[in-house]
Amino acid sequence: MSNEKIPYKIYLEESELPKQWYNVRADMKKKPAPLLNPGTGKPVTAEELGHVFCTELVKQELDETTPYIDIPEEILSFYKMYRPSPLVRAYCLEKALGTPAKIYYKFEGNNTSGSHKLNSAIAQAYYAKQQGLKGVTTETGAGQWGTALSMACSYFGLDCQVYMVKVSYEQKPFRREVMRTYGASVTPSPSNTTEVGRKILAEFPDTNGSLGCAISEAVEAATSQEGYRYVLGSVLSQVLIHQTVIGLESKIAMEKYGIKPDMIIGCAGGGSNLGGLVSPFIGEMLRGEANYQVIAVEPASCPSLTRGKYAYDFCDTGKVCPLAKMYTLGSGFMPSPNHAGGLRYHGMSSILSELYDQGLIEARSAEQTSVFEAAEKFARVEGILPAPESSHAIRVAIDEALKCKETGEEKTILFGLTGTGYFDMYAYGAYNDGKMSDYIPTDEEIAKSLATLPEIK
Amino acid sequence: MSNEKIPYKIYLEESELPKQWYNVRADMKKKPAPLLNPGTGKPVTAEELGHVFCTELVKQELDETTPYIDIPEEILSFYKMYRPSPLVRAYCLEKALGTPAKIYYKFEGNNTSGSHKLNSAIAQAYYAKQQGLKGVTTETGAGQWGTALSMACSYFGLDCQVYMVKVSYEQKPFRREVMRTYGASVTPSPSNTTEVGRKILAEFPDTNGSLGCAISEAVEAATSQEGYRYVLGSVLSQVLIHQTVIGLESKIAMEKYGIKPDMIIGCAGGGSNLGGLVSPFIGEMLRGEANYQVIAVEPASCPSLTRGKYAYDFCDTGKVCPLAKMYTLGSGFMPSPNHAGGLRYHGMSSILSELYDQGLIEARSAEQTSVFEAAEKFARVEGILPAPESSHAIRVAIDEALKCKETGEEKTILFGLTGTGYFDMYAYGAYNDGKMSDYIPTDEEIAKSLATLPEIK
Repeated sequence: MSNEKIPYKIYLEESELPKQWYNVRADMKKKPAPLLNPGTGKPVTAEELGHVFCTELVKQELDETTPYIDIPEEILSFYKMYRPSPLVRAYCLEKALGTPAKIYYKFEGNNTSGSHKLNSAIAQAYYAKQQGLKGVTTETGAGQWGTALSMACSYFGLDCQVYMVKVSYEQKPFRREVMRTYGASVTPSPSNTTEVGRKILAEFPDTNGSLGCAISEAVEAATSQEGYRYVLGSVLSQVLIHQTVIGLESKIAMEKYGIKPDMIIGCAGGGSNLGGLVSPFIGEMLRGEANYQVIAVEPASCPSLTRGKYAYDFCDTGKVCPLAKMYTLGSGFMPSPNHAGGLRYHGMSSILSELYDQGLIEARSAEQTSVFEAAEKFARVEGILPAPESSHAIRVAIDEALKCKETGEEKTILFGLTGTGYFDMYAYGAYNDGKMSDYIPTDEEIAKSLATLPEIK
Repeated sequence: MSNEKIPYKIYLEESELPKQWYNVRADMKKKPAPLLNPGTGKPVTAEELGHVFCTELVKQELDETTPYIDIPEEILSFYKMYRPSPLVRAYCLEKALGTPAKIYYKFEGNNTSGSHKLNSAIAQAYYAKQQGLKGVTTETGAGQWGTALSMACSYFGLDCQVYMVKVSYEQKPFRREVMRTYGASVTPSPSNTTEVGRKILAEFPDTNGSLGCAISEAVEAATSQEGYRYVLGSVLSQVLIHQTVIGLESKIAMEKYGIKPDMIIGCAGGGSNLGGLVSPFIGEMLRGEANYQVIAVEPASCPSLTRGKYAYDFCDTGKVCPLAKMYTLGSGFMPSPNHAGGLRYHGMSSILSELYDQGLIEARSAEQTSVFEAAEKFARVEGILPAPESSHAIRVAIDEALKCKETGEEKTILFGLTGTGYFDMYAYGAYNDGKMSDYIPTDEEIAKSLATLPEIK
């Protein structure tokens, strides 16, 4: 089909929407390493996980063999309120760059949470409701996940308790206010409301907080209240499963117009967006049906894939969660406070870590001023003001499109535009004022943090 | 067609998008009264208007006979980046209300400006560029129009100077930052940068500013700089023309599914959204082809239709603009500072004023706490966090749906959801904290303001 016929935005019909999520582990010959119980050093059981997570989500977490999982009807209904998300042909960006590359992005920002996080939030809230729970607890960094979860809980009438990384809580009062509008309670982390929070505050009274620390508090809050469970917006395999709706929709939309991407680019923090976008494509690679260049882009200030170690580590600072084998910077790693936005998790989804280790994904890091430069360029020509997180993918998509301009290659680039930056104007303001700086951790800093990795018995 | 078959969201194909705007004046037997030159009391000429506005826009402003105006190709291309906007069936709201009414809303918030304002901004920027201008000046109240215009100017490489009502400038620093990201300069109004601003500041040093005042400053800035013109986001007939893309798309989408609204509801400030949404439907009424109940909803704190006078008035506080015959509260009217969001203009589009006077539109006013109550209810079930402005329409849509619940009538309600409230969290926060109050101007206050209406020679 000729390019002229490809619309600016491809919206699928409701009848074309995926009715199942995809579980990439089913197609992996070498599976990701199992979660371990930190006390025994043995793989965690469903029963052990069930104290922390909802029963059905534990099942999904441990399921390595079922390739497709039916999306319950109630979740499909909710998806229809804000999905399909558009697959956009970036005609204006292509023109501005003067590139022969064809650039597409899957835009997940057209919902009030402002990002893809809602895809998993509604699923997790649904299973919690099905189980008859009163509520859920969680952490949030930049605030996208907390907002998404508060929307999902409000829809199902569940209580929602959010521990928000302190620096974000202070920089983003309006994020907090959106969560409150959806009925959630929001506590800056570390806080005095949990034992682990008090302990961290005693040791580091001036800490800005971190995701790892907020996770510890949320887990403690969930396990110490009757009828509560903990839910997580990234990293876990269950989250990647729910997020595959992004990649599945992208594939359906592209196939409808006979488009095949050469390159798929996503930003990578804990891996929820990247995993969701690329899993269905990597599934084809694993089954020997196709080949794609898949690129994970992470902040230079929090470079778990490019500079971390593939090892078992705690998922949280407080060391209350199971151990996961993943690319990690050490559970005590905290990105420099001048780092804006999310993508500040010390580790990476164990599925993506394993795929990266197998060479199916490559990784790059980007410094934040160059990320905001790409964000501004994109905003001015494509109209959408992107989230700082998403702008990591934009940075590399632009870099690759400019390479095509040099070589004359007409590559087809697909990237994930995970969300909007409406609640990140503090960071945009710093960039507009020329006050944004970069920080790349030194080798010594990373080595020091990695020295805290647990020993596996 | 049965309801079951109507999707949650109707997106038109690119090929189905309107290629012409509609000019409702062509179908009005009694036309709106002409703009008058305040000096001579005679209708303004195209030449006079041409000092302030772009030439092509003056033509549209004065054109009372051409029913359809071609949308230039470049504007159609830009529209394709964020249009069609979805026509949403509010299944979840209907269920939450337990109403037999069928509720639809046309959602204009899925673009970075966060509202419908972009529809006219891109048109006005295009004509300015075509005319070879360097830049444009404008005013903005809540900030939606300023953001939209800065996006449009950035796209065409035009300079954009925005005078922002002081109270909004202070309450919405992030709105300002978005405009800056798109390269616009933003000045709080009244300011010392214009003669009229200095005059107003001398008389009312503690003023919160008003739209009427910011308009005066922007007009002065445009006419005192070579290669600049003034553009306006509402009130003018040209703006209503551009905004008919909302109503035209709505009609096409509804007709595609055999839906006919009984009632069309829109919020009303200067009239840009309401006029754009309802004009194509009112055209049918004027031609005797159909009948609809059309409801304008305005804030009780700025009630131009429900409590104003239909008379010639200045469009701006500084009295530098032509006189327009409209429902007005007097050009010196300033809504109470506790009023949140937009819809704070003292007058109303002369087209809508005339249609209202002819009985084709009815009007209601809503108090802001009841508006935010409707906003929160809507956000929690439909997922979208609405702008305070849009929530006026939600309030009346909910009221009408609840009436249907009592009477058992299965009315089809269409309302305009003009935008999102992501930059209005200050106001949502006040509502969340129970600190929001209502203010209804007294009869004396309105009478005092109306006493300033100009005498027409």
